[in-house]
Amino acid sequence: MELFFQRVCIAGVGLIGGSLALGMRQQKLVREIIGVGRGEENLKLAKELGIIDDYTHQIEQGVEQADLVVLATPVRVMPELVKKAQGRFRSGAILTDVGSTKKELIEKIVRFLDSEVDFIPAHPIAGREKTGARYSDPDLFKGRWTIITPCSRSSPSGLEKIKLLWTRLGSKVEIMEPDFHDQVLAWISHLPHMIAYALVGVVMKKENEVPLLRFSAGGFRDFIRIAGSSPEMWRDICLENKKPILETITRYHKELELLARWIEEEKAKELEKYFTETRAIKEKVEKDG
Amino acid sequence: MELFFQRVCIAGVGLIGGSLALGMRQQKLVREIIGVGRGEENLKLAKELGIIDDYTHQIEQGVEQADLVVLATPVRVMPELVKKAQGRFRSGAILTDVGSTKKELIEKIVRFLDSEVDFIPAHPIAGREKTGARYSDPDLFKGRWTIITPCSRSSPSGLEKIKLLWTRLGSKVEIMEPDFHDQVLAWISHLPHMIAYALVGVVMKKENEVPLLRFSAGGFRDFIRIAGSSPEMWRDICLENKKPILETITRYHKELELLARWIEEEKAKELEKYFTETRAIKEKVEKDG
Repeated sequence: MELFFQRVCIAGVGLIGGSLALGMRQQKLVREIIGVGRGEENLKLAKELGIIDDYTHQIEQGVEQADLVVLATPVRVMPELVKKAQGRFRSGAILTDVGSTKKELIEKIVRFLDSEVDFIPAHPIAGREKTGARYSDPDLFKGRWTIITPCSRSSPSGLEKIKLLWTRLGSKVEIMEPDFHDQVLAWISHLPHMIAYALVGVVMKKENEVPLLRFSAGGFRDFIRIAGSSPEMWRDICLENKKPILETITRYHKELELLARWIEEEKAKELEKYFTETRAIKEKVEKDG
Repeated sequence: MELFFQRVCIAGVGLIGGSLALGMRQQKLVREIIGVGRGEENLKLAKELGIIDDYTHQIEQGVEQADLVVLATPVRVMPELVKKAQGRFRSGAILTDVGSTKKELIEKIVRFLDSEVDFIPAHPIAGREKTGARYSDPDLFKGRWTIITPCSRSSPSGLEKIKLLWTRLGSKVEIMEPDFHDQVLAWISHLPHMIAYALVGVVMKKENEVPLLRFSAGGFRDFIRIAGSSPEMWRDICLENKKPILETITRYHKELELLARWIEEEKAKELEKYFTETRAIKEKVEKDG
């Protein structure tokens, strides 16, 4: 299958949107890229850096004539953009996204979507704590997973194209049901972020009584880095994937309580066994790369 | 002050003990280093690598004629070693340790300690997930904190010597009360480890129903790395610093519950504000180095 787009519209030229643009250019998959966003400065920089060819602040202008439209904004903004662009999509255009949540997001987008648009929801599991077009990297997706979650509005040919697009950018691709995606992501991404936010948050409060942060080392610094992710993005993920996230937090509470009970009761053997099992996971993950 | 030891005994030639040995050699602070341990293979390797000059499995032999004895085993083993070495310490010898917990540990050690020994408890906040002499690195302590917690058995001159020792290895030194140390460490090190252990543990259980680990990325991989730390070491830390750790877990539970409630009630503004504040911590810590 040949893969080439005449005009790609990327709404949200941040780390992911910008990296996708650079990757598509590098792979010669696109003639022209139009960026859409609110921030003049970021878009101007993206143009100067050759990430996009031109930009507009109006999504309805951006989608015109585009044969591929990519939503790469925080997830809560995506349905609004689709609503604003109603009636302006090119017939037969493919719409995709890079949102970290899927089920509710898809339902909201489909509600406003022009009938002749082929919608292929996707989620590249890549990202760094840095945000903004300036950190764009065409290799960001190499060796990482992209999960595609087809919906009622996805055509088989559109699905193949988006699958090929991510493969060409070096990503491994997996097809999943939207709600299964949301459950998996709640466990491996959303819960870890909530845990890190709560840790840094509680230490921050304690810092008022006792100086702690100056001694921060090793593991704690990793938590600080994770809890330094984009506030808007994580606010949206919390709201859009509410139910799965709350389920994982409830389950996690019980697990931490189990450890606390063992510490309370000085269960040396149980603690050592548990820590030995989690260490085996590290060895397994390292072996599998 | 001149700092030079004729014979240093290091009990536990792991990452910390081995790195301390290499650092002391590099700084020319020692004539001879005797390693003490159980594992023949690790000690043999340490000798081959030039980390120690010789070794013994008997602590009572190791401490003989030593003007500096360093306990670098898991903390629960330390009092037993001091008990076994009773009556064999050289008069005027300095005993120090590198244990991650202090208050209970000091009480247990002092109980068995020969009266003519100068005990200066210390804790270099350094370490990696790798364990064993083979990973020894004389630069491990550079730019990191070492906390010294003098006790009833510490002399001012011994304190000065141990302070100078760590400074010479490139460490920043802070003097604290033992129980204050334990509280600080519970927050910045022990709690983060418990949190990571519980996350990897709960995902491991969930993995039986749903494949999750293969999609692990970004933040979650940091948790896996942290939860891959030494099981024996962390079992001991849990038991030795029980009360402060349990207090931090209780407080942490409430913090995570607060976040969960905001997610449940869709408090977008509160979530964003919270995530913005934790991000500011990241920026502060990065600025301060």
